[in-house]
Amino acid sequence: MGTQASGPRITLSYRSLEWIGGVDGHLRLLDQTRLPEAVDYLDCRSAEEVWDAIRRLCVRGAPAIGVAAAYGAVLGCSRREPLRWEDVEQICAYLKTCRPTAVNLGWALDRMLRTAQRCLTEGSGTSGRMALPASLLREAQAIEQEDRETCQALGRNGAELIPDGGAVLTHCNTGALAAAGIGTALAALFAAWEQGKRFTVWVDETRPLLQGARLTAWELHQRGIPAAVLCDHAAGQLMGAGKVQVVIVGADRIAANGDVANKIGTYGLAVLARAHGIPMYVSAPASTFDLSITGGWEIPIEQRSAEEVSVGLGRRTVPEGVEVYNPAFDVTPAEWISGIVTERGIIAPVNEARIRERLTT
Amino acid sequence: MGTQASGPRITLSYRSLEWIGGVDGHLRLLDQTRLPEAVDYLDCRSAEEVWDAIRRLCVRGAPAIGVAAAYGAVLGCSRREPLRWEDVEQICAYLKTCRPTAVNLGWALDRMLRTAQRCLTEGSGTSGRMALPASLLREAQAIEQEDRETCQALGRNGAELIPDGGAVLTHCNTGALAAAGIGTALAALFAAWEQGKRFTVWVDETRPLLQGARLTAWELHQRGIPAAVLCDHAAGQLMGAGKVQVVIVGADRIAANGDVANKIGTYGLAVLARAHGIPMYVSAPASTFDLSITGGWEIPIEQRSAEEVSVGLGRRTVPEGVEVYNPAFDVTPAEWISGIVTERGIIAPVNEARIRERLTT
Repeated sequence: MGTQASGPRITLSYRSLEWIGGVDGHLRLLDQTRLPEAVDYLDCRSAEEVWDAIRRLCVRGAPAIGVAAAYGAVLGCSRREPLRWEDVEQICAYLKTCRPTAVNLGWALDRMLRTAQRCLTEGSGTSGRMALPASLLREAQAIEQEDRETCQALGRNGAELIPDGGAVLTHCNTGALAAAGIGTALAALFAAWEQGKRFTVWVDETRPLLQGARLTAWELHQRGIPAAVLCDHAAGQLMGAGKVQVVIVGADRIAANGDVANKIGTYGLAVLARAHGIPMYVSAPASTFDLSITGGWEIPIEQRSAEEVSVGLGRRTVPEGVEVYNPAFDVTPAEWISGIVTERGIIAPVNEARIRERLTT
Repeated sequence: MGTQASGPRITLSYRSLEWIGGVDGHLRLLDQTRLPEAVDYLDCRSAEEVWDAIRRLCVRGAPAIGVAAAYGAVLGCSRREPLRWEDVEQICAYLKTCRPTAVNLGWALDRMLRTAQRCLTEGSGTSGRMALPASLLREAQAIEQEDRETCQALGRNGAELIPDGGAVLTHCNTGALAAAGIGTALAALFAAWEQGKRFTVWVDETRPLLQGARLTAWELHQRGIPAAVLCDHAAGQLMGAGKVQVVIVGADRIAANGDVANKIGTYGLAVLARAHGIPMYVSAPASTFDLSITGGWEIPIEQRSAEEVSVGLGRRTVPEGVEVYNPAFDVTPAEWISGIVTERGIIAPVNEARIRERLTT
């Protein structure tokens, strides 16, 4: 599998989510809407609460919302008696609707569905239904644990791309807050730092919700890695001044041809990086690839509310009556990406043949 | 001169600044830090108050701060008795320190200095000193009036670049709030709209202080021109989707070779526009050109406080202890600019010969 990390294991002092208790337990989320001002937790005891927490971005990041949704399915199923196949189907279908772009959500919920099916088929009648909640919890915990291992491997594989002595630019948040494990793109920085490499990190603040400023800067600061936050549109000037050696970002969905849907702004960064001859890498687990779609044009892009831009920071900044354009993601063409870091190694150049070779063999 | 507009004259219902009264009057500013929530005015009765208002961006935009500073010199000189040449020099030198990048500031204050010198030389002793306050006020009013005419010409000349039926992207604020007249880049949109052209305007919100969202959107909305505000880093995706036909921005200082210092983010927009084959224009009065410097590398770039980014919108968005990189401007190379609109016509291609030809003949 290549997911068994052999390098040093990175441990962090915080986690984005945690299952508390047994089959009748609940999901505890680090409420990311409150960072960096407060480290608060949110306890979710129903599928609806998880749906709402994902929608409101209390938990976000493609791998993390996959794990959170799996636990949401556990919560949705744990208090139904009798629990039927139709109920599981309905709960998973419901949870899939909370956000459209990240494919990890559907991927994790499909695993939960397959687990339910297997449990109901293997157990006979009542015994299968009785075993179902425990089976679902085990599967959600397996998804979480696999994500932890995957993130370690992403860190180890990505670390080799990080220069010793240079500067790295990143966008949005791709650390431990975006996953169950230590993250995707940011994991590479954690691992490189652990290896003794020294560098600074330019952190795009990432409007409108400032996941870079609020979350990535917080994570790097916790780890003692020097970081400087910039307004997103200052990235070009930095590149022009020779102050960026590599760009590394995450992904919310990657098409079979390698086109990458990621936080809005990634497309522009790729154009800038190309124009300045700076390598730009994407880091994502295999679960972020959607080989069922040909290219990025098929990826549904979530449009989020105008209020995130117009009043999101406490005061009205866009006049009443003026429209706001607020897509959450954009799609970067495969040919502009220098390589994609996965838990199974780095895919470069980025094209369908290399992707299928790396992910399916 | 080419500054006498022959097309229809655009009038707007608001103005960025106004001199109230005679020689002992004061400067009234539309307080731009309060828009769009409130239309408030700030009365400045001393050079120090004007200095502070410019520094705090109650009034901003290269042409507007030139005019405001000229009135600041009037205020600084109007209450001194006896008023000596050294006082005028000192007041103008002081006012020049409030912001470093926009050359209009120094340009306007140099005009005030020349006026004072002329007045003191022509008048003999006491009579020259007695006439000085009135002469300075007349000069400030002349600078203001010339800016009004210049803006009309910028609008008329720029309007021909605006498509009928397409979409225009702009950055920061370059309208009547950035000038004494109707603006620079935005004046082209006002004039094109007046001519019956129909288009929509993509307004970069322009972090950190959101002059696009707060001011440009407000001005366009006042005029009934359809506008949509976007996060700055969404511009690339819009261009990639074919939704931008032309980019037009202002300038804070233009070097002899045509390199343009303008609001941070302009450099990145130029790279994006070039990559997508979209023309990008700059609109600026002759007073924004600084023919004394060879290229953009000589332009001093103002670094503004970290707080604009980290707490500027009412809540802390960058963790304590994390650095912030907050340059107010960047420099775009001349060769990436399709043309510069001036009151004397459009300079294209942008190079030193064309600039000198247009501005000095």
